[in-house]
Amino acid sequence: MTDVAEDFRDMIRWTADGLVPAIAQDHKTGRILMMAWMNPESLQLTAEEGIAVYWSRSRGKLWRKGESSGHTQIVHEVRLDCDEDVIVLMVEQKGGMACHTGRESCFYRVLKDGQWQTVDPVLKDPKDIYS
Amino acid sequence: MTDVAEDFRDMIRWTADGLVPAIAQDHKTGRILMMAWMNPESLQLTAEEGIAVYWSRSRGKLWRKGESSGHTQIVHEVRLDCDEDVIVLMVEQKGGMACHTGRESCFYRVLKDGQWQTVDPVLKDPKDIYS
Repeated sequence: MTDVAEDFRDMIRWTADGLVPAIAQDHKTGRILMMAWMNPESLQLTAEEGIAVYWSRSRGKLWRKGESSGHTQIVHEVRLDCDEDVIVLMVEQKGGMACHTGRESCFYRVLKDGQWQTVDPVLKDPKDIYS
Repeated sequence: MTDVAEDFRDMIRWTADGLVPAIAQDHKTGRILMMAWMNPESLQLTAEEGIAVYWSRSRGKLWRKGESSGHTQIVHEVRLDCDEDVIVLMVEQKGGMACHTGRESCFYRVLKDGQWQTVDPVLKDPKDIYS
């Protein structure tokens, strides 16, 4: 790891758990695909490898997005916000779906009439994604 | 408050602090403008009033976005993710800028050559926004 690489991570205001939220957005359509978390190592790997690497809070380990589904995210740009506590990734979503439900985006429910209503189609059965 | 309204908030997996991250995205261009936090009351008010109301963690109170700057966010759509722990707001950003630095988006820095580089212009001097 280089000094320069350490610099850009030092700028970030990590949570008490040492994480930062990272929003993945389709670099062409602007569709927000998902939000996940990164630790310093996953951010470093994302910058080095050019694919999105998150920190899985539930599994407590590095999570190369797409490692089981094949739906990797090619990272075109990494942005930081004014408070230095949120990251945006502009990505190319392999397979056209980011969500484990087989949808393009994890944000497939809209608030209508006081209820969360599913408005986006399943593109591929999760059984066929993770088999 | 109606039963229906309580239902849609009960679906959300609030943090231990009783908050949920909310990403504001321009409803036309798709530009991600900012990420802030909501508590149940601010989400309820956002749904009722059709303008973005966040919870300011630093001030510990409700924050009607634009209350001092005039840069309110008209909410066109509210979305929820598959894990029920992140919200996306599709908004119309009044004044054309969401960031307190006078920029369109809070995500005005890009990671280049191992450094965060500012790539977006200031549209209005913050002194003139908050005076």
